[in-house]
Amino acid sequence: MYTLHDWTIIDDGRDGQAALENGNRLLIGNGYLAKRGTVEEADASCMPSIILSGVYDKCGDLWREPVNAPDPLFTVLRLDGVPFTLASENLAVHEQSLNFRYGVYSRKTTWNIENVRLTVVSERFVSMDDIHLLCMKYTVSAALDCLSLEVETRINTDVHDLNGPHMGSFQFKIKGQTRTLICETLEKKIPIAVAAEDEINRNGSLYRSIKGNRSSYLVNLDGSNPVEMFVYGAIWTGLDVDDPLAEAEKSILRAKEAGWDRLYAAHTAKWDAIWRVGDIVIEGDDYAQKALRYNLYHLHIIAPRHKRRCGNLSIPARGLSGQTYKGAVFWDVEMFIAPYFLATEPKLVAQFIRYRIETLPGARRKAIEYGFRGAFFAWESQETGDDACTDFNVIDVFTGRPVRTYFRDKQIHISADIVFAIKRYIDATGDFAILKEGGLELILEVARFYLSSIYYSPEHTRYEALDVVGPDEYHERVNNNVFTNRMIHMVFETAEAAIELLKEKDRAFSEELLLKLDFSKDLSFMREVIPRFYVPQPNGQGVIEQFDGYFRLEDCSINAVRSRVRDPKEYWGGGNGVASTTRIIKQADVVTMLALFGDDYPVFVKKANLAFYEPRTEHGSSLSACMYALLACETGDSDWAYPFFVKGAEIDIAGKGKLFAGLVSIGGTHPAANGGTWMTAIQGLETDLQNIYKFN
Amino acid sequence: MYTLHDWTIIDDGRDGQAALENGNRLLIGNGYLAKRGTVEEADASCMPSIILSGVYDKCGDLWREPVNAPDPLFTVLRLDGVPFTLASENLAVHEQSLNFRYGVYSRKTTWNIENVRLTVVSERFVSMDDIHLLCMKYTVSAALDCLSLEVETRINTDVHDLNGPHMGSFQFKIKGQTRTLICETLEKKIPIAVAAEDEINRNGSLYRSIKGNRSSYLVNLDGSNPVEMFVYGAIWTGLDVDDPLAEAEKSILRAKEAGWDRLYAAHTAKWDAIWRVGDIVIEGDDYAQKALRYNLYHLHIIAPRHKRRCGNLSIPARGLSGQTYKGAVFWDVEMFIAPYFLATEPKLVAQFIRYRIETLPGARRKAIEYGFRGAFFAWESQETGDDACTDFNVIDVFTGRPVRTYFRDKQIHISADIVFAIKRYIDATGDFAILKEGGLELILEVARFYLSSIYYSPEHTRYEALDVVGPDEYHERVNNNVFTNRMIHMVFETAEAAIELLKEKDRAFSEELLLKLDFSKDLSFMREVIPRFYVPQPNGQGVIEQFDGYFRLEDCSINAVRSRVRDPKEYWGGGNGVASTTRIIKQADVVTMLALFGDDYPVFVKKANLAFYEPRTEHGSSLSACMYALLACETGDSDWAYPFFVKGAEIDIAGKGKLFAGLVSIGGTHPAANGGTWMTAIQGLETDLQNIYKFN
Repeated sequence: MYTLHDWTIIDDGRDGQAALENGNRLLIGNGYLAKRGTVEEADASCMPSIILSGVYDKCGDLWREPVNAPDPLFTVLRLDGVPFTLASENLAVHEQSLNFRYGVYSRKTTWNIENVRLTVVSERFVSMDDIHLLCMKYTVSAALDCLSLEVETRINTDVHDLNGPHMGSFQFKIKGQTRTLICETLEKKIPIAVAAEDEINRNGSLYRSIKGNRSSYLVNLDGSNPVEMFVYGAIWTGLDVDDPLAEAEKSILRAKEAGWDRLYAAHTAKWDAIWRVGDIVIEGDDYAQKALRYNLYHLHIIAPRHKRRCGNLSIPARGLSGQTYKGAVFWDVEMFIAPYFLATEPKLVAQFIRYRIETLPGARRKAIEYGFRGAFFAWESQETGDDACTDFNVIDVFTGRPVRTYFRDKQIHISADIVFAIKRYIDATGDFAILKEGGLELILEVARFYLSSIYYSPEHTRYEALDVVGPDEYHERVNNNVFTNRMIHMVFETAEAAIELLKEKDRAFSEELLLKLDFSKDLSFMREVIPRFYVPQPNGQGVIEQFDGYFRLEDCSINAVRSRVRDPKEYWGGGNGVASTTRIIKQADVVTMLALFGDDYPVFVKKANLAFYEPRTEHGSSLSACMYALLACETGDSDWAYPFFVKGAEIDIAGKGKLFAGLVSIGGTHPAANGGTWMTAIQGLETDLQNIYKFN
Repeated sequence: MYTLHDWTIIDDGRDGQAALENGNRLLIGNGYLAKRGTVEEADASCMPSIILSGVYDKCGDLWREPVNAPDPLFTVLRLDGVPFTLASENLAVHEQSLNFRYGVYSRKTTWNIENVRLTVVSERFVSMDDIHLLCMKYTVSAALDCLSLEVETRINTDVHDLNGPHMGSFQFKIKGQTRTLICETLEKKIPIAVAAEDEINRNGSLYRSIKGNRSSYLVNLDGSNPVEMFVYGAIWTGLDVDDPLAEAEKSILRAKEAGWDRLYAAHTAKWDAIWRVGDIVIEGDDYAQKALRYNLYHLHIIAPRHKRRCGNLSIPARGLSGQTYKGAVFWDVEMFIAPYFLATEPKLVAQFIRYRIETLPGARRKAIEYGFRGAFFAWESQETGDDACTDFNVIDVFTGRPVRTYFRDKQIHISADIVFAIKRYIDATGDFAILKEGGLELILEVARFYLSSIYYSPEHTRYEALDVVGPDEYHERVNNNVFTNRMIHMVFETAEAAIELLKEKDRAFSEELLLKLDFSKDLSFMREVIPRFYVPQPNGQGVIEQFDGYFRLEDCSINAVRSRVRDPKEYWGGGNGVASTTRIIKQADVVTMLALFGDDYPVFVKKANLAFYEPRTEHGSSLSACMYALLACETGDSDWAYPFFVKGAEIDIAGKGKLFAGLVSIGGTHPAANGGTWMTAIQGLETDLQNIYKFN
């Protein structure tokens, strides 16, 4: 059971489901890597992991996913060869916690054998100051004498993988006291180097062995003298430097020289700097204050602030919390995460945009693959921008067969979402230079993609976007999805405006680009389309139909749909999903559009759509609740909004997110909901939260 | 096990599955009604039925379907109250047969109790001469004395219904020796009258009781004097006359006066007349001869040659063999059945067309329902032309939940199929008068429907038909299905040609109609569309891609797909169907198009598509094999075609048709395959079948 305090979250859950939940809940990270909140001795069943940002691998025909690095902090206690774990029968007291002001994970566990009360207290952090570094203090004490206790720490290569294993060619070496490992990924042979060293505070009653990846001690504990061990680990890859092993060794030497206290101080100093820019103080609502900070913490530990020689990084849909969703970047970053950083560290947003500019070739390839021109961005983007999403992204629980889903080929709004983020970035920062650094080219290529895919209806004398999937993924292959159409229209307008802007600022550049892209025909066609492109409008009651024919679907309650479910893991969407043929939607769709384009719609339309769609929304996505909260605030109804704010804010606190889509694992942290929580608090609830917030 | 002889098919199958198969195999009928080939004493589990052409009912929320009438010929033997049935332990010999020259069903069954060898021989026909009349001769004999045998005949109201019951308000009366029943359907209160009377040849050792719907005799049989009973039944409905009960009584009186021999002679005389026009003599291939005649027989017993005061009739997909497919008229009649009658009794084809003209209002309503103009004909058409097809036409075997299918809303080729039949009728008969009797209006309304639903692709500068289902129903919601697009193009050309023709023949009529329909704008748009409408063309190998993206689908064998099936009844199409994501198709699609528009394509294209598509065709529809056979013949490869001819011809002989789609019953006879068998024999195999055939 978890409790949330100021800057701290504590949980006393033990094994099984608790281990999976706490892995996310107590995650620590620094944007380069993140380590799940599992205990030091956790085996693969607890899904321990150290995910490295932007390092992917493909094992055989399995899904491409981020690499889970060997763990230099793995540590276990044994007595007579029997390890102490959370599953041990003699486990007496256990608690784990996270200090989310400073990203410090702690655990305290007591095993009781004949009143010895063996207790482990550990603390660890992944350094915000030196991003390759993981540091741990591990203290073992006992109430009575405890002889021949074995303390082993090792670089653990027995990592959990969803679709692995991902590494081979393991080579272990010991250099002085430093244990090192170099291995490489299977697909692209990326070298991964891990180094570790430990220091222990006692010399008496001690036998030490160091061999391969292991360092182990045999100690005699008495009631008054605990064993205190420090373990430093370092991880470098071939994507960082040419000789990652040498760098890992150097990191360890530096760490050892500095020692725990100075490493800790340097780490927390960086966090102080982060919070100076990024904290929000809410007065009058303690819970909201704690919850909001917890959500912001989760954004900071995955924000890729470092430079990488092979290109810019962005933020995956489940951050660095695991291999779920293939570690891929979705629309989440542009639509739900970028706003916070735009207000606090806009350089990060520029980096997200550059990541997309760098993956433009992949988007061009995808467009060609589907017979279009321009840039059709990956629904699930990894390092090259080629789509990691498959045509079969869900497993049917009844037959065990893959289900054809249409995320990859039909969720075309992804390209527009990126343009929207660029527009929002320039509007907020005035940094139109990014247009010249590939931004305009991206925008024009996205416009061209839509121009090459839309249709004209002679019957309705308008251009339409057909056969798409909108944000509500339970309804696939629909025509004229409001969100999608509005976003496409925005792309055309943004392209037009960006061309005009650059013509003014740098006419030569602009003309050269249009020429290089051979865009003149597209431009005149785009100008013809803009006033004739169909964006569905509110009906007499102010409600906007989510897509053509939505109002023809069965109008039933969420509970009615739930009652038809035969298996708790079954997917509600797809060909035979229980929601697909009803008006029940997965997440905010029309409401997201209204939240984004609020200026275009009167309050009564916003109210009408909130009232209509909310009872029909499962909120089966973490991107949903915050949009309802945000829009409700815009209509002045923050009382109505508050529970949705809380729902969004609590996803990672409570660990209530869905764990499965069909038989496919989708658990992890929810950065988009973290960002949405900020959006709601700042852009939405501000006036009610005693009207006091500030950037420190 | 069945055996096929000249003009006779014999089967010795007994209960269970055999009863269901023989119900179809030994069906008799006269276009007004048909009676399944079940034994006289069959209970509801054997699915006995008398389907009345064009009489439908809806029970509660269940599917609307044809009414199964009470059976005036029901007869059973009992000894000491125990009935003799095919399930009786003492059943010794049993055989049923059908004389398909004259539509006479026979059965011969012997039960052996202590060497008594009780034998029933029965013969029955539904009169081709007096369509309301059913006649039966029922003979009981025994090898030794058999005392107190009860022979009961009754009007049996315990009928089998798929989605019933359909009748209520039962009133039984006895008038003289005639037993009568009047009842009515639930939905539209259509009166159904049934009358019956029996005559028996013996006066000795006989006790008779007549009560309600029953007439029963107690007889003492000896070895030399069989009991011979004649039963005459008559069925009339309120759709025929105002007082169906009076007419039924009159029918019985007429029948009794005429007697068995004269009734039989009048009936067979009509059949002789039918065969004089409709028979095909094949020399040199006995099997083909027998099989072809059997197939033609099945067309004749469901051909609605009678006039009906409430409108014209057409032919349902499963004829009058039961309630399967809601007794609805599909495209089968226009595409697969009409050609035979066009060559033999073209008036029937005119009647099929008039049925469609009369249901034009329903087609207009359906178009409006989906936001189109013009005429969108019902995929499953009953008496009004409103669509009996539901959005959920299949039940998922794994969840028991209905599966969303797209037959109703996306199989838009149905409207074009009707136009094609009209065009073919006029081309063959020269009877362009039908254009003035509603034919042209229908054609223009169909053209308008397509004009209101097509899209223009600016990228490809062409008009396209999007989001359709073609003949291959395993692939739903596809773009630019070759068959559909070619048919739409044919509609536009036919509309243009029909307007020109009528302008020449009756300018005033033509101008008035165009004015009445306000068609001038549509006409000029249609003329713009004709040269710009996209019909996919053969690729470099001569193969035509069935729809956009078909070539991207998984290329695997039918066996590979079959190996993924988890339940023998599971539906291969729909959202999660095993075939949907592969190139495996249900039935001829491109091949059907090539068979219809053969003149437009060179032989190598036909060969290439046969070779490409045949190994990928499940032939899961009875409309498939004949199209392959037909096209193969056109390429001169009748050896290749012959097995497909046999496959098509044998569907009803062998009873091999599918019985289920998901959990929905789809068994019955296959008139389209019957028609396809003729098409193949005449249009295809003629030259090889010793090149000898003729209309007698």
